[in-house]
Amino acid sequence: MINIAIVGYGNLGKAVEAQISQHPDLNCIGIFSRRENLDSKIYPSYHYEELFNSNLNIDVCILCGSSEKDLQIQTAELAQYYNCIDSFDIHSLIPQHLKNVHANASKYETSSIVSVGWDPGLFSLQRLIFEAIMPQGKTETFWGKGVSQGHSNAIKTIEGVIDAIQYTIPNEEVMAAVRRNEDIDPSLKHERHCYVCANKEDQERIKNEIINMSHYFKGQKTIVNFITEEEMLENHQGMPHGGHVIRSAESNSYHHNLSFELALENNPNFTAAILIACSRAVYRLNKEGRYGAFTIFDLSMKDMSINSREDLIKRLL
Amino acid sequence: MINIAIVGYGNLGKAVEAQISQHPDLNCIGIFSRRENLDSKIYPSYHYEELFNSNLNIDVCILCGSSEKDLQIQTAELAQYYNCIDSFDIHSLIPQHLKNVHANASKYETSSIVSVGWDPGLFSLQRLIFEAIMPQGKTETFWGKGVSQGHSNAIKTIEGVIDAIQYTIPNEEVMAAVRRNEDIDPSLKHERHCYVCANKEDQERIKNEIINMSHYFKGQKTIVNFITEEEMLENHQGMPHGGHVIRSAESNSYHHNLSFELALENNPNFTAAILIACSRAVYRLNKEGRYGAFTIFDLSMKDMSINSREDLIKRLL
Repeated sequence: MINIAIVGYGNLGKAVEAQISQHPDLNCIGIFSRRENLDSKIYPSYHYEELFNSNLNIDVCILCGSSEKDLQIQTAELAQYYNCIDSFDIHSLIPQHLKNVHANASKYETSSIVSVGWDPGLFSLQRLIFEAIMPQGKTETFWGKGVSQGHSNAIKTIEGVIDAIQYTIPNEEVMAAVRRNEDIDPSLKHERHCYVCANKEDQERIKNEIINMSHYFKGQKTIVNFITEEEMLENHQGMPHGGHVIRSAESNSYHHNLSFELALENNPNFTAAILIACSRAVYRLNKEGRYGAFTIFDLSMKDMSINSREDLIKRLL
Repeated sequence: MINIAIVGYGNLGKAVEAQISQHPDLNCIGIFSRRENLDSKIYPSYHYEELFNSNLNIDVCILCGSSEKDLQIQTAELAQYYNCIDSFDIHSLIPQHLKNVHANASKYETSSIVSVGWDPGLFSLQRLIFEAIMPQGKTETFWGKGVSQGHSNAIKTIEGVIDAIQYTIPNEEVMAAVRRNEDIDPSLKHERHCYVCANKEDQERIKNEIINMSHYFKGQKTIVNFITEEEMLENHQGMPHGGHVIRSAESNSYHHNLSFELALENNPNFTAAILIACSRAVYRLNKEGRYGAFTIFDLSMKDMSINSREDLIKRLL
């Protein structure tokens, strides 16, 4: 049995909690959070600080906090004591994050896998495989249909917005053009569908502010729909997501298409599933004496499975 | 530079030969074959036996022979001297093949990766990843549109058949049913489209023999078209292939779909590309002192790329 600690109790932590018992080789020791009153009904709850002086026999910490507020500090900090998994997803800061975690993990002989989820994570792995096998070609990633938390929050900062949600939707025609190896305009890859609650008199101004918001919406096909708070509650509480990685490649004048697609009914549920599979892999890395910080590019995929190598070869190869 | 020997000079060996120069870190030393008169215009040609007493500085042999006639013997034999890559694809015999190669590779401190291609190979890897992450669900593999050499040859054994080709085509409706998590009838997963050259008076009998051929066509949707030899030459000389791996999964009452798709204009060209990328990986395994026989389940995907880990993390993670 591998003893797991869940660190953080937001959407992602709760999703790990909900499904970890499906894995007979994993044993959840408890939930650790900075919040004072945790409400886990399944596992013991502890304050985050107890990770530094507990006698609990933890093999792997699955870190479920926010990249910006928590993981930048926590993963490196906890790597002094435990094997860690995180889904750190600020792309530009990943090399530095990896370096920070690696320094402590190597020193204290622990192992960590950082930045796993589906993007960064599974999508990254496909981008690497596609490019390694077919060096001449072009890879495009499309996201959606899915909720973008960042874009939803950007809308909520606008004065007068009561509530808002933004769905990113891949443009099917642009995906088809990528498969035909045609040049595309990146600004047309995605459509942005916004559902916003606001008073009638603010709507025209809010719509303009959204459409012209640089970095988020400007220059992209953006559709703004105003809905009632009732409709928001009824139709927009799900957290679907997904996307496509497509490579259009040429080799000796032959044209090949490689595609990977995820259609997820619930984003945190699926991300949690990847973190859980990686907790098995990091435990094995550590047992093999491979200390330091790793990424999904470094793993043997067999180490993510509960099944033996022999069984996997027989059934799945 | 990694020095490569191509062993075998059929479709696959020629496809490796044609594209290896696209990889600036790989240097092809020559082609080795049992044939007496090789016609490579690009690289030096040698008899297979010279692999046993040459002074050539070979880092990796890419074995391109037939699984049944060549690889069963050759990979284990050559693993006594060299790091090897093969695409051994007789599913039921893979565990034994792996064991045979492993015995010699461990003893003589070489490394081999066996059974890589796209199935077994890339498709196997996706099946493993899908199942490890989403243990509750069902994975289905669909092949095509593509030429099945085995089925084409089976038709050619029928008396009166002058020439024949068989395309395996996935049934789109069954694929959609898999995505909806419905039960399917495996015999309906693929349609078999046969193009056959035969004299008029034999056609009715041949059609019946094809449709009723057990193991190959019986019980499957099979369409037989008779064409002229001219049409065969004009329209059926390509070697397209591909397929889908689809997992329909449930996790905490959420439904997720994971899909991987290949659409290949030329099957040997793409298989060769995977063997080439794996030659880099096996060279690195050997340098790290990891001796023995491995599968795609054991590799770090970063080892298939010409690019540095640092670059891959920065660009693709």
